Amino acid sequence: MGAAILSDLLTEILIPAAAVIGIAFSLIQWVIVSRVKVTPERQSPPSNNNNSSNKNGGYTDYLIEEEEGLNDHNVVVKCAEIQNAISEGATSFLFTEYQYVGIFMIAFAILIFLFLGSVEGFSTKSQPCTYSKDKMCKSALANAIFSTISFLLGAITSVVSGFLGMKIATYANARTTLEARKGVGKAFITAFRSGAVMGFLLAANGLLVLYIAINLFKLYYGDDWEGLFEAITGYGLGGSSMALFGRVGGGIYTKAADVGADLVGKVERNIPEDDPRNPAVIADNVGDNVGDIAGMGSDLFGSYAESSCAALVVASISSFGINHDFTAMCYPLLISSMGIIVCLITTLFATDFFEIKAVKEIEPALKKQLIISTALMTAGIAIVSWISLPSSFTIFNFGVQKSVKNWELFFCVAIGLWAGLVIGFVTEYYTSNAYSPVQDVADSCRTGAATNVIFGLALGYKSVIIPIFAIAVSIFVSFSLAAMYGIAVAALGMLSTIATGLAIDAYGPISDNAGGIAEMAGMSHRIRERTDALDAAGNTTAAIGKGFAIGSAALVSLALFGAFVSRAAISTVDVLTPKVFIGLIVGAMLPYWFSAMTMKSVGSAALKMVEEVRRQFNTIPGLMEGLAKPDYATCVKISTDASIKEMIPPGALVMLTPLIVGTFFGVETLSGVLAGSLVSGVQIAISASNTGGAWDNAKKYIEAGASEHARTLGPKGSDPHKAAVIGDTIGDPLKDTSGPSLNILIKLMAVESLVFAPFFARHGGLLFKIF
Amino acid sequence: MGAAILSDLLTEILIPAAAVIGIAFSLIQWVIVSRVKVTPERQSPPSNNNNSSNKNGGYTDYLIEEEEGLNDHNVVVKCAEIQNAISEGATSFLFTEYQYVGIFMIAFAILIFLFLGSVEGFSTKSQPCTYSKDKMCKSALANAIFSTISFLLGAITSVVSGFLGMKIATYANARTTLEARKGVGKAFITAFRSGAVMGFLLAANGLLVLYIAINLFKLYYGDDWEGLFEAITGYGLGGSSMALFGRVGGGIYTKAADVGADLVGKVERNIPEDDPRNPAVIADNVGDNVGDIAGMGSDLFGSYAESSCAALVVASISSFGINHDFTAMCYPLLISSMGIIVCLITTLFATDFFEIKAVKEIEPALKKQLIISTALMTAGIAIVSWISLPSSFTIFNFGVQKSVKNWELFFCVAIGLWAGLVIGFVTEYYTSNAYSPVQDVADSCRTGAATNVIFGLALGYKSVIIPIFAIAVSIFVSFSLAAMYGIAVAALGMLSTIATGLAIDAYGPISDNAGGIAEMAGMSHRIRERTDALDAAGNTTAAIGKGFAIGSAALVSLALFGAFVSRAAISTVDVLTPKVFIGLIVGAMLPYWFSAMTMKSVGSAALKMVEEVRRQFNTIPGLMEGLAKPDYATCVKISTDASIKEMIPPGALVMLTPLIVGTFFGVETLSGVLAGSLVSGVQIAISASNTGGAWDNAKKYIEAGASEHARTLGPKGSDPHKAAVIGDTIGDPLKDTSGPSLNILIKLMAVESLVFAPFFARHGGLLFKIF
Repeated sequence: MGAAILSDLLTEILIPAAAVIGIAFSLIQWVIVSRVKVTPERQSPPSNNNNSSNKNGGYTDYLIEEEEGLNDHNVVVKCAEIQNAISEGATSFLFTEYQYVGIFMIAFAILIFLFLGSVEGFSTKSQPCTYSKDKMCKSALANAIFSTISFLLGAITSVVSGFLGMKIATYANARTTLEARKGVGKAFITAFRSGAVMGFLLAANGLLVLYIAINLFKLYYGDDWEGLFEAITGYGLGGSSMALFGRVGGGIYTKAADVGADLVGKVERNIPEDDPRNPAVIADNVGDNVGDIAGMGSDLFGSYAESSCAALVVASISSFGINHDFTAMCYPLLISSMGIIVCLITTLFATDFFEIKAVKEIEPALKKQLIISTALMTAGIAIVSWISLPSSFTIFNFGVQKSVKNWELFFCVAIGLWAGLVIGFVTEYYTSNAYSPVQDVADSCRTGAATNVIFGLALGYKSVIIPIFAIAVSIFVSFSLAAMYGIAVAALGMLSTIATGLAIDAYGPISDNAGGIAEMAGMSHRIRERTDALDAAGNTTAAIGKGFAIGSAALVSLALFGAFVSRAAISTVDVLTPKVFIGLIVGAMLPYWFSAMTMKSVGSAALKMVEEVRRQFNTIPGLMEGLAKPDYATCVKISTDASIKEMIPPGALVMLTPLIVGTFFGVETLSGVLAGSLVSGVQIAISASNTGGAWDNAKKYIEAGASEHARTLGPKGSDPHKAAVIGDTIGDPLKDTSGPSLNILIKLMAVESLVFAPFFARHGGLLFKIF
Repeated sequence: MGAAILSDLLTEILIPAAAVIGIAFSLIQWVIVSRVKVTPERQSPPSNNNNSSNKNGGYTDYLIEEEEGLNDHNVVVKCAEIQNAISEGATSFLFTEYQYVGIFMIAFAILIFLFLGSVEGFSTKSQPCTYSKDKMCKSALANAIFSTISFLLGAITSVVSGFLGMKIATYANARTTLEARKGVGKAFITAFRSGAVMGFLLAANGLLVLYIAINLFKLYYGDDWEGLFEAITGYGLGGSSMALFGRVGGGIYTKAADVGADLVGKVERNIPEDDPRNPAVIADNVGDNVGDIAGMGSDLFGSYAESSCAALVVASISSFGINHDFTAMCYPLLISSMGIIVCLITTLFATDFFEIKAVKEIEPALKKQLIISTALMTAGIAIVSWISLPSSFTIFNFGVQKSVKNWELFFCVAIGLWAGLVIGFVTEYYTSNAYSPVQDVADSCRTGAATNVIFGLALGYKSVIIPIFAIAVSIFVSFSLAAMYGIAVAALGMLSTIATGLAIDAYGPISDNAGGIAEMAGMSHRIRERTDALDAAGNTTAAIGKGFAIGSAALVSLALFGAFVSRAAISTVDVLTPKVFIGLIVGAMLPYWFSAMTMKSVGSAALKMVEEVRRQFNTIPGLMEGLAKPDYATCVKISTDASIKEMIPPGALVMLTPLIVGTFFGVETLSGVLAGSLVSGVQIAISASNTGGAWDNAKKYIEAGASEHARTLGPKGSDPHKAAVIGDTIGDPLKDTSGPSLNILIKLMAVESLVFAPFFARHGGLLFKIF
């Protein structure tokens, strides 16, 4: 076997150490961002004073490209006001959302306890282990109790992650606007640092909570590792359930406001985006923070928690668990720890080693983050695999133990990591307006909105091809090398650079908000152009982030699916049995059902928003002239009410499907449903995200008019531009509501099935038992 | 066992008799339609004279609602001219298309021969049978030769079906226009009879050719029924290959012309649809005939051929084949024979027993056709099952023989039939503007094209739910009762009323063309209103037809997939093996790849068309004023060239995928690909068809202004109407190109895999063998 180099004690120290380093790094970035002051009163003169004592972090260079407005107290005050309004709106929405979801979570926690407890009739007696029937494991009741606890823990961690992300983003947006006065480089670095705060905080927090939970559970479970890690999967379920509501609720909120604001403001009234006269403008900016930031944070945290849980539960029934090899058991956590360190170094390349001086350097800088983190992480994985794994060990593979070598596991993680990079680059190719696909879509606006939509849909469909091949190859390789454990660690590999991924992802909505604040504060046109440039790059990175989220979700779901099948004691999932096939085809339908609900919700909420905005424009005298203030609060309320009300049905669909199918149709049909929703949902999710991203950037391409070709389509207000705006509006719910929610759908159904597997295996398939 | 009541001799007589009756009925309908004269020269006075000697078939009632134009020789001459132009355009396109496809077909025939011949090294020696290894069957070379022959036979039958359908439709369109002068009832009956000509001709022709082929092959194969029916599957492959090119080529042709004509004519120049000043108008009308008629005819013929082949090949290795029970063996053909008789009676309900007097009676009349045929056919199936099957028999089920009773088989066929009706009604609900879903979509046009598109997409996604449940239930029941054979006969059940289905389907494009001819011939507005009413009902029936086509395709593919798995000697298709899972996820991606190609093709071809139409409007003096004639021929050429060129890549994707996957990755991965493309493709196909149909009818709803609500959205040219036109245009490629082609994709890949199964089983999986 060859024992691991890393001792158990060192493992116990290294993992929390990495988490603490990540949190500390995040705090340092926060301190740096906080030096940009939005309270001008205390300083006199305010101009540039805030940076004078700062000798590091990209602030050493005092290149001030434009002085205008730097001395303007009013602008700073206005920015602070708007920032407060956005932050308050977002906080109040999230509190409302969490109240409703909290009730649901408690109900669901009770359900988990009852279902899992009933497996052995709430008996406290020990029971034979699932995989080694000759040994005795903790009682089913213990599993019920600890699963419920870890479910709540996951949900709470997810809430904290999303909430902190939102707080950081709303803290940073006005600061980015103010820095944009000094140049695009300063603005970029502020937005990027703020993104890093969120990225590192989430990654480190997720790791730390999981680590602590494992150690606390161990006090009770002791040597029963199988029981321990089965109970820990509740953590993934909690994280993803919360993420689902966050994504759907936030997605409906943000897009109802966005679509509503655009349809009246841009299309009917011909006023610019984010114009303060538009009553829906605050709701729109709040939406970016609750949807794109809090939702995304919860989502990726969920993926991370689930892939860790999937890997751990498989490891517990492999030789790591059987031999009580703690260090090898903690391999997934060590990979994540290494990821934090690698991302930390990567971040320095953007914030300290290089400096952005021009607009065209933004996208390459963000791309470089991906490449550097991937390259460094490859070495990191090699080191972790070398020091923490025995040279040879066995992995549980549907009833048999498969012999695996440590370098094979390295390949599993690495292929996941690199597949992520490939997906990222393909996404960039299809959604950035620097390449021909988006330019073709922009060009098709010449003949109107219809051809724009046809070309955009075709682009989204086409963009699925390479990511699916990348996912297929990583599945094949990792599955062949190390069975389900291989898939789980491949997913972890893809998510190992999550801190960097989240940083560049959060950067987008922060820039978007910064632009909104500039517009609302009435700052000069040149400021807006700079934030727009940041935002265009942000659209692409957002699409890349979604690509990662989907790719990792596919791998995670498959790993969880595999773990579910093992735990439910099914030997094969044969497509050519009627029970499995009907599951497969119905499962493939679920993403459509779910998308129909979420799209329709956004559409209906947007219609209400449009009516309200129109009403205000028609009834408030002097609004169009800028003499009167619109009633922002009513629009915020419309978005809030709509999203709270409308997130319930799709949420219930996802949460209840595994329960209903498992209970009434049994584990075979449920396996089919999981496989079907996985293979179908991935495609829709990728194509929806990319279609939406492409339309958005096609519009920005025409607006920016940076090339000869783009100028023939523009300027703003031309017929091709109007057609592009229609495409952009259609893309909003696709890329920010239904698309990204789908990866939660597939993950969540898989992890829920895994948690409830003992119940389904014991009591499931009622309908077939009756007939 | 209990022998069947029907003797073999009677079976030999009944099947061809039913086919001949079908053909005769079709000819009678043709004669009736031909009595409407489009050559006024021979008659004087022409008014109504053409019907004076006709005492039957709905013509007994001389109620003439409107006399205007009845005496106008010029109108009749003009109609005849336009009809000729359309007919010539369609004929010339189909000849060009068949030339290209012909070359491909010959090449593919050679490929089939070489691949299948090489299985045993072109040896003429007998070989052990696939399923009963102790018996000797005909050589692999014989299989290669006869498979190639039946492939060519299927392709030719498909060509003939599509071509005849087109000829009939172009023969009927002007006649429908002329009859519309006498009232909506007369026009309806002419269009419907013409549809019936096509429906019965195709159904009877398909049955007859298959029956003759079986009897001829039997001369060589003798007692080797397994070999015979394996060779016969080539018939299905030939039919579907041809259908693929017909659907894709025709779909690109018709939608390039339609979208191009609408974008310039309706949107830019504000002239009505089918205005003779529009240079693309002839191409548009030609397109309806080559796409919707010829393509649909080939498609449903392919489904019919494949489901028969799938059933026959399974039957040959079940007790029917083993015991040489000819009558039971011919059960699928007897079902189809009964279907022809049932449809014949059903048709009389529309043409002779009742009469349409008002617009609002059209849709109910067409719906009644579906209900009557389904109800009668249920009895028909019971009779066939009772007289032709032994009371108990065994069916091959993946290596074991399953005992089945005759009433169980009745349930299999009946559930397929009724599932078809459910799918038809759901489709109607989601695409007819008589119900709230389409009205909601129309209402969303108030806020512009973007909300229209969002609502339309959501509607399409939602419309998938019930059809998928219907398909799942029929799969579960028929699979549980009679394994793969059950699925195959369920598909046959759904297609048993194909003659009626095709009749009401073909009715749509004929009415559409009739409206076009009325507009072009400068006939009164009231004539156009009547044909528009026919056409609106036609949109819904077209969607219903597509629903049937997709539902039956799903069942057929599954049956073929099952037959393939058996023939390739795989015991299980376990999703949780890497080879199968990568096939599953890549297979689920193929419909997206295919749709991306076809959508983009329509988009690009439409752009070219737009440029040409714009050019003509700008450069031909007096065109807008109606003083000069446009250059129709150039537009026809653009559509022709585009469709011929653009149909190759998607066609190649579908035809080559099974060959490449089977040869390089082997039968397990190919099984995954088939299952993945099936469960994913069905959803996209249904949602694309219904979204497109809904947009089309939402536009018609606003245009017709038949309700208070509709009038608030109209009239033509209002902003909501413009938004509705954009939706309609986007829907064109979805509902008429990519959507309906997808059901061919899933069927074709399955039948191709089945035909090549012996080769893959012997030589497949090269890549895995190398590594």
